Amino acid sequence: MRVLGIIVEYNPFHNGHLYHLTLAKELVKPDYVVAVMSGNFCQRGEPAIIDKFARTEIALLNGVDLVLELPFVYAVQDAGGFARGAVWSLHNTNVVTDIVFGSESADLSFLQKIAEVMVKQPDPFPTLMREELKKGHSFPNARKYALMRYFDLTKEMDPKQVLRIEKSNDILGVEYIRSLMILGSQIKPHVIKRVGAEDRDERFQGKFSSATAIRKCISNGDWEKVAKALPVNSLRVVSRELNEGRGPVLLQHMETLILSKLRLMDRAQLQRLHGFDEGLDKRFIDCASKATSLEDFFACVKSRRFTLSKIRRLCLYALFDVTSDFVEKSNTFGPQYLRVLGFSAKGRELLSKMKRVSRVPIISLCSLYRKVLDQSMKKPERFQIHPELFEQQLLYDIRATSIYSLLFPKQSERIGDKDFKVPPIMIT
Amino acid sequence: MRVLGIIVEYNPFHNGHLYHLTLAKELVKPDYVVAVMSGNFCQRGEPAIIDKFARTEIALLNGVDLVLELPFVYAVQDAGGFARGAVWSLHNTNVVTDIVFGSESADLSFLQKIAEVMVKQPDPFPTLMREELKKGHSFPNARKYALMRYFDLTKEMDPKQVLRIEKSNDILGVEYIRSLMILGSQIKPHVIKRVGAEDRDERFQGKFSSATAIRKCISNGDWEKVAKALPVNSLRVVSRELNEGRGPVLLQHMETLILSKLRLMDRAQLQRLHGFDEGLDKRFIDCASKATSLEDFFACVKSRRFTLSKIRRLCLYALFDVTSDFVEKSNTFGPQYLRVLGFSAKGRELLSKMKRVSRVPIISLCSLYRKVLDQSMKKPERFQIHPELFEQQLLYDIRATSIYSLLFPKQSERIGDKDFKVPPIMIT
Repeated sequence: MRVLGIIVEYNPFHNGHLYHLTLAKELVKPDYVVAVMSGNFCQRGEPAIIDKFARTEIALLNGVDLVLELPFVYAVQDAGGFARGAVWSLHNTNVVTDIVFGSESADLSFLQKIAEVMVKQPDPFPTLMREELKKGHSFPNARKYALMRYFDLTKEMDPKQVLRIEKSNDILGVEYIRSLMILGSQIKPHVIKRVGAEDRDERFQGKFSSATAIRKCISNGDWEKVAKALPVNSLRVVSRELNEGRGPVLLQHMETLILSKLRLMDRAQLQRLHGFDEGLDKRFIDCASKATSLEDFFACVKSRRFTLSKIRRLCLYALFDVTSDFVEKSNTFGPQYLRVLGFSAKGRELLSKMKRVSRVPIISLCSLYRKVLDQSMKKPERFQIHPELFEQQLLYDIRATSIYSLLFPKQSERIGDKDFKVPPIMIT
Repeated sequence: MRVLGIIVEYNPFHNGHLYHLTLAKELVKPDYVVAVMSGNFCQRGEPAIIDKFARTEIALLNGVDLVLELPFVYAVQDAGGFARGAVWSLHNTNVVTDIVFGSESADLSFLQKIAEVMVKQPDPFPTLMREELKKGHSFPNARKYALMRYFDLTKEMDPKQVLRIEKSNDILGVEYIRSLMILGSQIKPHVIKRVGAEDRDERFQGKFSSATAIRKCISNGDWEKVAKALPVNSLRVVSRELNEGRGPVLLQHMETLILSKLRLMDRAQLQRLHGFDEGLDKRFIDCASKATSLEDFFACVKSRRFTLSKIRRLCLYALFDVTSDFVEKSNTFGPQYLRVLGFSAKGRELLSKMKRVSRVPIISLCSLYRKVLDQSMKKPERFQIHPELFEQQLLYDIRATSIYSLLFPKQSERIGDKDFKVPPIMIT
């Protein structure tokens, strides 16, 4: 049995995603496709434009058999944490045999070589890394320069090649492979060349536009363009969600929430949170006082050292109180459950196979999580889970959903704890 | 030298307030008038319709000489805590000789008798109180029944008279007198009969309408009515504030802030806050999940036991993290400073007298608070202040202002830390 695993945000599902999925299926010829998908908040530190239930529906309509939620604590981390949580989730299914991901370079051996140096830390890489960090470079830059110097010394690769991983999908690709290596996973990675616009490209480029460009068209109500860039069923669900007042959900809607939370916090509180190092705590507090909008705030905080995505993610950490301790534990012990967001008829078959072999418990109905946890604790030979971390990870998913609902344009849709109320999405 | 002290919210300053001020001056014939005024949040658990700086300006224009800010921690407490903070502030000036307050009964000896029983707790009042509480009555109701039974036994007063303190200004009046008694203050209380509409009366009643009715007209843009109910200079400042995008500030604007904060909290966190007893923690969490609006939320939480004002105040405690510990310390040790919001030319004279005799340090420029605190700590013979509580009380005032600004309709007005930026309002 071959099971293809993919790691997605589908924010929203567009023609590029469908193309990627089709190619990946041709490559792996899987019996089943499993996607691990960000929930209501994405890696760019923004709320998804429509909610995870609708995005699950679209994924299923387009040939994914089973959609699992990437827990919030991983979904809103940098490439390293995101990749770790996602790959670990697929590994935890214990049924996924192949992962396919898009890449600008599409050069697997190159990505593997880099990942290997990161994982194995061969001499003198650790020394080079320390030296570059001492020079005051940010962590990703220090790593880049250390890698270049390492390959210059070892002649394993042309040092300039390292610069190829600057592109966001290659950064993720390296992290996926690295996570597979760390886990000692048997899952086989494959890369396929990305087509169309780059993720960050905000310009509409017709059929293969970036998700960023498409979200912009959706929030501007430019449906003619949106229709060009989305598969028909995706367009239908996105329109329905907006018609029913459940979108578009935009970061803009969180302006007062984020600024007020920051204005109510002190440095000591921010310092307990993930990522507020390098003086970012003071910077955030000063800028939250000066800024009268999120845009002002980002402009105030931003510097060459900190990307906008990082700043947005830190805003979410502040709003949701994502502590360093919680992130470190999550990165050390991995996702504690597999939350099922939805499945097709085939997905249901896969799910019953998975239930027998998965490395962590499976939560199909969130309201029954206690029962799932209690039963899993009785099987220590199968599950090495940490009950407190399990509950904490799930609590953040639930809270993320409760806050997300408050951002819906239509008031009557703003109910909390939707995770307890919405059963898995099923497509037949 | 006679100095009249008054306790006000001026939300907004209307004809009834002017009438009260005129009468009070006739009664006391003071050399100076000092008002202690709520800041940006009021005792009803709502943001003031325009900010404390504009409300100070109006007070000064109408004959108040000096406006002091009632610290947030007292301004948003129930009648007891509000009165305690306000009276204690006036007592701390060490220049106020008389307090005049409005009252429905306008019967000082009656209010004093009740306050005396509350303060001195003569037998068998404590026993009666315990019995009534055991029956499951809320604290104010238990007190009412215990007082009735006490007077029935002692024949000091017709027990039915106790029911007269049901009116909100009489409740406050009793609390003012009680606070004066507890402090052993030499300040002389006076009552004057209230005119016009009751505070809670939402109907517009012409010239003497309630602040509630007037706020409603302001938010509906019914300026013809507003003009009838406000003195000309009040109307002018209120209009200016609204034209400049600094109002109307309404509780409604805090809907997402409050619901999201509650959805992010757990019972243990709520239980650390002031007032979340009698199962209100669970009730708040359940209702915040179900409710899609503040209105829904209030309807869900409300019961005969909990007034709407109390529920709104608790929402502010949740938003601002007002802990029991902080409130208890504040009620035990009193306001730690006198924050000057504004003064007239006469007020400036009074302020310089006050600086020599006040019982707590005076903060005229908030940005210099550290200096004020440090210098005050060097005079332990004059000031018995608690530096941590001083900073905590001030921090909450500053935060309240920072959050309040975010509620302004005009984006460019939403700057934080305005307390550090706005000097005292001066009227010449």
